[in-house]
Amino acid sequence: MRTVTVPLGNRSYAIHIGTGLIGKLGKYCESLGLGHRCAVITDRNVARHYLDRAIASLEKAGFSCAAIVLAPGENTKNLRTVEACYNRLAKAQIERSSFVVALGGGVVGDLAGFVGATYLRGISFVQVPTTLLAQVDSSVGGKVGVNLKIGKNLVGAFYQPTLVLADVDTLSTLPERQYRAGLAEVVKYGVIYDAGLFEQLEWKLSRMLERSPGTIVEIVARCCEIKAEVVSKDETEGGLRAILNFGHTIGHALEVLGAYSKYLHGEAIAIGQVVEARISTRLAGLPQADAERIGQLLNSAGLPVEVKLSAREFTRLWRTMHLDKKAKEGKVRFVLVPRIGQAVWGQTVSKEVVRQFLV
Amino acid sequence: MRTVTVPLGNRSYAIHIGTGLIGKLGKYCESLGLGHRCAVITDRNVARHYLDRAIASLEKAGFSCAAIVLAPGENTKNLRTVEACYNRLAKAQIERSSFVVALGGGVVGDLAGFVGATYLRGISFVQVPTTLLAQVDSSVGGKVGVNLKIGKNLVGAFYQPTLVLADVDTLSTLPERQYRAGLAEVVKYGVIYDAGLFEQLEWKLSRMLERSPGTIVEIVARCCEIKAEVVSKDETEGGLRAILNFGHTIGHALEVLGAYSKYLHGEAIAIGQVVEARISTRLAGLPQADAERIGQLLNSAGLPVEVKLSAREFTRLWRTMHLDKKAKEGKVRFVLVPRIGQAVWGQTVSKEVVRQFLV
Repeated sequence: MRTVTVPLGNRSYAIHIGTGLIGKLGKYCESLGLGHRCAVITDRNVARHYLDRAIASLEKAGFSCAAIVLAPGENTKNLRTVEACYNRLAKAQIERSSFVVALGGGVVGDLAGFVGATYLRGISFVQVPTTLLAQVDSSVGGKVGVNLKIGKNLVGAFYQPTLVLADVDTLSTLPERQYRAGLAEVVKYGVIYDAGLFEQLEWKLSRMLERSPGTIVEIVARCCEIKAEVVSKDETEGGLRAILNFGHTIGHALEVLGAYSKYLHGEAIAIGQVVEARISTRLAGLPQADAERIGQLLNSAGLPVEVKLSAREFTRLWRTMHLDKKAKEGKVRFVLVPRIGQAVWGQTVSKEVVRQFLV
Repeated sequence: MRTVTVPLGNRSYAIHIGTGLIGKLGKYCESLGLGHRCAVITDRNVARHYLDRAIASLEKAGFSCAAIVLAPGENTKNLRTVEACYNRLAKAQIERSSFVVALGGGVVGDLAGFVGATYLRGISFVQVPTTLLAQVDSSVGGKVGVNLKIGKNLVGAFYQPTLVLADVDTLSTLPERQYRAGLAEVVKYGVIYDAGLFEQLEWKLSRMLERSPGTIVEIVARCCEIKAEVVSKDETEGGLRAILNFGHTIGHALEVLGAYSKYLHGEAIAIGQVVEARISTRLAGLPQADAERIGQLLNSAGLPVEVKLSAREFTRLWRTMHLDKKAKEGKVRFVLVPRIGQAVWGQTVSKEVVRQFLV
């Protein structure tokens, strides 16, 4: 097992990455000094495999648990679901000293985290990410929230979990498409922050695709270290943290365009990264060969790396990008990469340049 | 004009209390260094009197403003309204650097504050309270949120405003019933924290009821000072801040019982204070004579001071109190007053004692 700490003063917390961790969930929660009631929020897919194990562990440690099982998928991540969760928490008599356990992928984590952040003005929550994407990205750093019809993650909060337990055993039941989507965020850490990680991924990709637990623990821990470092320097995204959005300016808009159902998040940001890398060759001095390496690695991971939009689709995409949280004074902001392992944020890019790589 | 500062490190802010302040809203906002777009959230009653003035002032200072006008009343304070506001903000292209102005009473302030706290994971917001209750209480201290059907303020956040402008001119158009309801919170500050203020209210009540601006500025400023002091010591209600809930354990439940329409918030907590003062004579050593002074002052302010519940209503009330945020380990918590000017929190009271003063 590896442990990474996110150092945020009195809101610091540990991320444990290893095997067999769900069986120890209750024990870990016991050590946090929380009240004796909790609610586990999960989705049907995850519940089938892991809910019983999680609840058994919590109950064994003396917690009384309610379970809230949601429909899987990004379309669940909305305010209607949030309200339904609030009502369930009230019925389960969840109090300020109680806590929420988010057992699932990014959708469950973001939504359950937002519920935890806002129910009774905020109660503790524990992340138990069960997808690769959630383990390396969404469960760490305290970004929680839900989508509006007109845009992704437009509603939310910065609210840190009390603990993150990344049990890599859960990846064994993850559908291939979901697993590969998670690799897009893994590649991103290499591109924006760590050329060594990027190279390691180039030669260890097959072992990652075989889901070798040892390799996964090592790679997930490195991603969490990077995220913890970035988040501890800039918790609420005043600056540096924005680099984590590489590939996301275009990626989020593609998700909206596809009504959150055409692409998985990781797939959309795989395309986003390739396009933004190409923009980087034009505007940030990224060598052409490096843009190609990025495309190749994502492609070898079985991810989509391009999209051809009609003129009308591009117009919608461009408009959607202006609704993004990253927009400022009506201008869309991009993260660009001058070279693999380094990123700059807050870059404006003209409509023409963006169009060139998408239409 | 009086100015009170709420000292909360890099989230400190000023409360200005005086006359003619809405006309200077734009100027004050200018000095905060915010982006040039804002949305004013208000209700129909307030809009009729003050929206044009507020927007004129903001536009004169160079801000571009959207206005969101809600139906007045506590029943507006729900998640449906919140979602409608999000969609309006998105349409108005409100960005992270933009801000929300809450122009209205407690309902508008709580709701607009929650919208500000959660839209794009939090944007700045300015409180312009236009009721006595909002000026002395709800606009200060960062408690924002909305109601669920099953309980008041069950959803929300601690999220501080950037500025509070309490223009006492706005009280001149406040309906008598609303104004008197605000006095209940004013009396509360005396009861829990400042025996001098309580005495002052006893002999200045007629001037307060005549709405003499000088007296109002003085009294509102004192209430804000007390609230600022309490909040700066305990922002997220780990302890001391709970004293501000005097009268609220029973008051909130009465509001729920009356479906938020029978009592105004101030009326419910007037009754709540009288009942909790009586409980205090039994359990906290409050002299009987002081409990009577509390009842008398509230009664002289034209507020309801008692309620007779049927056995069935009491059962519902008791159950509702357990859903309150103040409940802990299944036990309802009360604030009690050993003497006027001092309060203790976290007190448990048996069902029988509570019943005795309500049925």
